[in-house]
Amino acid sequence: MNMSRTEERSRERLVVVGGDAAGMSAASQARRLRGPDELEIVAFERGHFTSYSACGIPYWVGGDVPDRDRLIARSPEEHRTRDIDLRMRTEVVEIDVGSARVRARDVDSGAESWTSYDKLVIATGARPIRPDLPGVDAPGVHGVQTLDDGQALLDTLAATEGRIGSAPRVRAVVVGAGYIGVEMAEALVNRGYEVTVVNRGKEPMSTLDPDMGRLVHKAMEGMGITMVDDSEVTALRTGADGRVRAVATEDAEYPADVVVLGIGVRPETTLARAAGLPLGEHGGLLTDLSLRVRGHDDIWAGGDCVEVLDLVSGRERHIPLGTHANKHGQIIGANVGGGYGTFPGVVGTAVSKVCDLEIARTGLREKDADRAGLRYVTVIIESTSRAGYYPGAAPMTVKMLAERRTGRLLGVQIVGREGAGKRVDIAAVALTAGMTVEQMTALDLGYAPPFSPVWDPVLVAARKAVAAVRSGAS
Amino acid sequence: MNMSRTEERSRERLVVVGGDAAGMSAASQARRLRGPDELEIVAFERGHFTSYSACGIPYWVGGDVPDRDRLIARSPEEHRTRDIDLRMRTEVVEIDVGSARVRARDVDSGAESWTSYDKLVIATGARPIRPDLPGVDAPGVHGVQTLDDGQALLDTLAATEGRIGSAPRVRAVVVGAGYIGVEMAEALVNRGYEVTVVNRGKEPMSTLDPDMGRLVHKAMEGMGITMVDDSEVTALRTGADGRVRAVATEDAEYPADVVVLGIGVRPETTLARAAGLPLGEHGGLLTDLSLRVRGHDDIWAGGDCVEVLDLVSGRERHIPLGTHANKHGQIIGANVGGGYGTFPGVVGTAVSKVCDLEIARTGLREKDADRAGLRYVTVIIESTSRAGYYPGAAPMTVKMLAERRTGRLLGVQIVGREGAGKRVDIAAVALTAGMTVEQMTALDLGYAPPFSPVWDPVLVAARKAVAAVRSGAS
Repeated sequence: MNMSRTEERSRERLVVVGGDAAGMSAASQARRLRGPDELEIVAFERGHFTSYSACGIPYWVGGDVPDRDRLIARSPEEHRTRDIDLRMRTEVVEIDVGSARVRARDVDSGAESWTSYDKLVIATGARPIRPDLPGVDAPGVHGVQTLDDGQALLDTLAATEGRIGSAPRVRAVVVGAGYIGVEMAEALVNRGYEVTVVNRGKEPMSTLDPDMGRLVHKAMEGMGITMVDDSEVTALRTGADGRVRAVATEDAEYPADVVVLGIGVRPETTLARAAGLPLGEHGGLLTDLSLRVRGHDDIWAGGDCVEVLDLVSGRERHIPLGTHANKHGQIIGANVGGGYGTFPGVVGTAVSKVCDLEIARTGLREKDADRAGLRYVTVIIESTSRAGYYPGAAPMTVKMLAERRTGRLLGVQIVGREGAGKRVDIAAVALTAGMTVEQMTALDLGYAPPFSPVWDPVLVAARKAVAAVRSGAS
Repeated sequence: MNMSRTEERSRERLVVVGGDAAGMSAASQARRLRGPDELEIVAFERGHFTSYSACGIPYWVGGDVPDRDRLIARSPEEHRTRDIDLRMRTEVVEIDVGSARVRARDVDSGAESWTSYDKLVIATGARPIRPDLPGVDAPGVHGVQTLDDGQALLDTLAATEGRIGSAPRVRAVVVGAGYIGVEMAEALVNRGYEVTVVNRGKEPMSTLDPDMGRLVHKAMEGMGITMVDDSEVTALRTGADGRVRAVATEDAEYPADVVVLGIGVRPETTLARAAGLPLGEHGGLLTDLSLRVRGHDDIWAGGDCVEVLDLVSGRERHIPLGTHANKHGQIIGANVGGGYGTFPGVVGTAVSKVCDLEIARTGLREKDADRAGLRYVTVIIESTSRAGYYPGAAPMTVKMLAERRTGRLLGVQIVGREGAGKRVDIAAVALTAGMTVEQMTALDLGYAPPFSPVWDPVLVAARKAVAAVRSGAS
């Protein structure tokens, strides 16, 4: 903190760059701890919205969420009533660390001005990977990162859907088969499209091991989705009207009335890089446990623009996820507001669904464990969500990795139907606690026939993993 | 182990008393580890069935499970094909510890004989509490502990149901509002009965604190069930035909065409007590961590007839639950079969449902914590099962207890709709790991809008508990 500047002004100034989950949670939490007489809070957001759920966009597009505003947790006006000086459509274009100030530009007028800070929060989020392909900017090709993206896609869909049910069929191609890709496939299936998912990985959901991704592949095919794996998109073909008409790979061409890009995101750290702030191998900001940018006592960073410590591998990872961004915001807000909080790291839990298929993972995949230098055993078991005799008992496949010799849990992947997804939380807590698979076999989990078999599927996997660890020679 | 006897016979003999989950799991696991040439296994069961799910009886009675045999995990014939000498309808009437033998009686013929053992497993289960009330043995009054009980109740229901929909209404009274009571209330509602639940506690579900039990009371009333709390049953009135016609309390009389007793169970340790084996304050057998009966190297016990260590309070408890019985059986089977296993204890997790209401608990209630000499804070929060904007997001109330000063998690209770019950597993694992509520706020739980709000309800409770611990003076 620069004391002389603090003395000049009667109160400290906190500047927040980015008005979504991490930034505005930090601002709100800081405001709770320190009133406007003590702390001035200025927040810059280049877009039209604050504090919205990007994770909800596929469900808005798919029609499960009726309108955009349901995805907005807190509007700019609500933030302003809490004495946060929120400047919308104002993009920070430079962070001057030496002089502790930021340069911001009004997106509409282009006018620029400097704002000094005592404390700075960088919450610039992530930017979607947009491949440099012929035709990628053609009408009918959409990302789904922002609410504006979602609205643009919905406008395209509205213009297309009159033809659904007629011949030729109305086709959507989703490029990418990660979380966003599979969720968008569901959204488009729900709207009646013929959906093809083109994916360069061997199987969809590369956040799973391929053997578990294969289950997703098969289940999605069962939903009538055409799954094209192991295929790199080479171009987006356009028609005479300039609109997209097909997705081309090296081997084939897939007709498309609309294309959704769901290839993933990278940390948006252009400003941070230019300011000389420390970035990790995934391009995200590096922080300490209090989420302070390393080497900078008055700068914090959180949300999709930072790398987080993976507690299982001991390595930094980039995991863009709203739940982390919200936690980061709370912790940063506590720290800049004079309280105290730390973010110890993650175990890499994620859950998703495609129609009635639930997909979950936590901890390390086989290749993560290999990279981390770990030796491990893997087991796969089949079980059900409820007692086998109870109506609605749905099959579930659980894969578990445990370290050789020590038996420490390393990771769990689950693919199943209703009741599969959130079971991963059992493993997430066990990973955090550093439990062995043998300790897990004694876990006292909720049992009643409508909720679980007498051995919960996670315990069935743990028992098999114990046997594998015992018999493992290496 | 008595070596001389072993030498006399060419192989050891394991005797198992009780053919349900704990006993037959132990027998099966022992057989997996040691073949019939090494180990003879003799199992006695006084009833008609082995290895069945008593927890499933309410769903069979309610019609969710179409027939009795679905509840039987493994029949006597299946056990016998695995070289287990299973003697059905044969009741052990004496354990002679000094001579290492049991006396068994053929239930039908009355013939008796002694069988010696090298190793003995006691898995005599629990017996339902059957109050000594006038009329308790009248036709139309039913327990629901065994498959035979379930069939008798179904026979009564079949004889009664012709009148459903006519006047006067056909009425069922359930005595007791614990797990069995509320599950039987659901079963009878599903069959079209007018259901009254008479309960001597202040609220239903005394395994919850009363403030959470109140939520169950209200929800059950909302299902059209008449809830009578704080009322001791004094008699079961019979009509001219000798059949039950009403349940009487001190204050009132409740007309009944059928009465279900769901008052709970006690450890069935008559044999063990007569044999001088050590029993705890709840009447259950006391074992060491390998489930060996204390002070007896060649006798093991598990399932509903033993007391288990509550890892949170440090005290023994009696928790009759199929999931524990199965674990016990596995561990005993490993130990008697020459392997190794221990049962470290429980944290008291239980989950149940009444129609669409889900009820879960783990750890200590307020009165348990008081008894254990703990000081604690309590918080209650309201949240939802999914992101608020996602269809089907259902309300959920979470209560959390944390120790003062240390912030260690002590207990969680959840009442809600779909998605509420199994969330208790997060807390069950955290309790097992000895986590503080502050550590819990950093848990990396599965998040996506169809599965959870961005802050999982358990994390919302943990955050509030952290604040309560911090502000707690005492």
